[in-house]
Amino acid sequence: MSRSDQTGQSPDEAPVDRLAALEARLTALEDQLAITRLMATYGPSVDSLSAEITAALWAEDGCYDAGVDVFDGRDGLRRMVLTDPHQGFVLGGCAHIVSAPQVTVDGDTAVAVCHSQLLLRDESADGYRVWRVTANRWEWARTPNGWKVTARTNRPLDGGEEARELFRASLAEPEE
Amino acid sequence: MSRSDQTGQSPDEAPVDRLAALEARLTALEDQLAITRLMATYGPSVDSLSAEITAALWAEDGCYDAGVDVFDGRDGLRRMVLTDPHQGFVLGGCAHIVSAPQVTVDGDTAVAVCHSQLLLRDESADGYRVWRVTANRWEWARTPNGWKVTARTNRPLDGGEEARELFRASLAEPEE
Amino acid sequence: MSRSDQTGQSPDEAPVDRLAALEARLTALEDQLAITRLMATYGPSVDSLSAEITAALWAEDGCYDAGVDVFDGRDGLRRMVLTDPHQGFVLGGCAHIVSAPQVTVDGDTAVAVCHSQLLLRDESADGYRVWRVTANRWEWARTPNGWKVTARTNRPLDGGEEARELFRASLAEPEE
Repeated sequence: MSRSDQTGQSPDEAPVDRLAALEARLTALEDQLAITRLMATYGPSVDSLSAEITAALWAEDGCYDAGVDVFDGRDGLRRMVLTDPHQGFVLGGCAHIVSAPQVTVDGDTAVAVCHSQLLLRDESADGYRVWRVTANRWEWARTPNGWKVTARTNRPLDGGEEARELFRASLAEPEE
Repeated sequence: MSRSDQTGQSPDEAPVDRLAALEARLTALEDQLAITRLMATYGPSVDSLSAEITAALWAEDGCYDAGVDVFDGRDGLRRMVLTDPHQGFVLGGCAHIVSAPQVTVDGDTAVAVCHSQLLLRDESADGYRVWRVTANRWEWARTPNGWKVTARTNRPLDGGEEARELFRASLAEPEE
Repeated sequence: MSRSDQTGQSPDEAPVDRLAALEARLTALEDQLAITRLMATYGPSVDSLSAEITAALWAEDGCYDAGVDVFDGRDGLRRMVLTDPHQGFVLGGCAHIVSAPQVTVDGDTAVAVCHSQLLLRDESADGYRVWRVTANRWEWARTPNGWKVTARTNRPLDGGEEARELFRASLAEPEE
């Protein structure tokens, strides 16, 4: 049996080559799942005022441009969680829901695209008002402590061009 | 050591057998994640009028039966994205949010089940109206260009039997 | 080449060691994805009154503490699905949407954290009311029949402390 066989295997060396290929494929899945899991951490962390958990999702010098305001670094993120208007939303009843993202990893960086919603408790309606719905772009970097957000940008889906531009600039295209 | 050992391994041949088993398990995960990721592409693509990206999610002769209308093939999908009523929703502010799906792969086809929501900007309420909420069945086929939608069917969760039938016909059962 | 090489490989024994490492990493991904997929099964199962599917997500003696009520064991789950108020919600039009979860596996148990929403059809508003939004903790156990819910707990995100406590007690922290 030789390299030219259909399977490309030789009894002696093929297993090691196949192992390397498997490791690369596995790492790609781990990256995608790790980022997806961290994005699912955001909402429950801010809705429970867990500022340290929220901050630890970002790189030390990461940024969150929420459109209405910009929060710089982990200190900026902590302040966002622990001050108004955010704290007022939480104490009145709210939910920050991040939709299942399209994650695209390229080596040691990644881009994720999704929607996010901010629901506010509305006693008069015996329910919740969907107050803000935004287009999201999350930029990620691989670090010794796992994947970290280097920049998150939101733009409201209010009919304006900005949200559409953000989505178009961020979405990876499927194969034709 | 022989095949009858607890681990079923022999020093010479076992690694190759274990490799094949790993490759099959890895492919199963890749399939599930690839489909999940493509489904997360749909909403951001239609909300940004990225008709080519939306169309490329479908097979050339795929179909989208949205209940209120049926869109045939990639040309049908492109037209859906770029004409009314969809274009009007987008220019008025909207979000198409696809929930995290149950994906079940069977060889070269797959079925995914989820909810989808269409939120419309409502200036008078300073927020968004949850206008349509539907039961979703997505049928997928493996192609040389990745997984493609062969048929997507939505039915409104309006209390009628159709949505329940769609879910029941599509859901895979957990082991007892 | 010896064990002290950078790659830690020897030609004879390394592939088997690397295989074991790959198998462990693969199992970790399979666990995370299996739980995520089962959580995506919940909403479509209850919205289609598929009581057997809902019940099969839980362990025989599992529990669902929904705050407004507690459902014990698979029989309790079946009754929840097939009686009021749930049945009335479904026949009036509703959607139970479970957000993409943060899943943390620890050996043969796991904890998942997410939001869930209950949307009710509101004909007068030509849309849906977001009626209940809750903080969720799902506890899982590995069984011979796959992962099963041993306990699910929901608390309304109404501004009170309970939902925040549930999230804080359940969220895994990212690495600093």
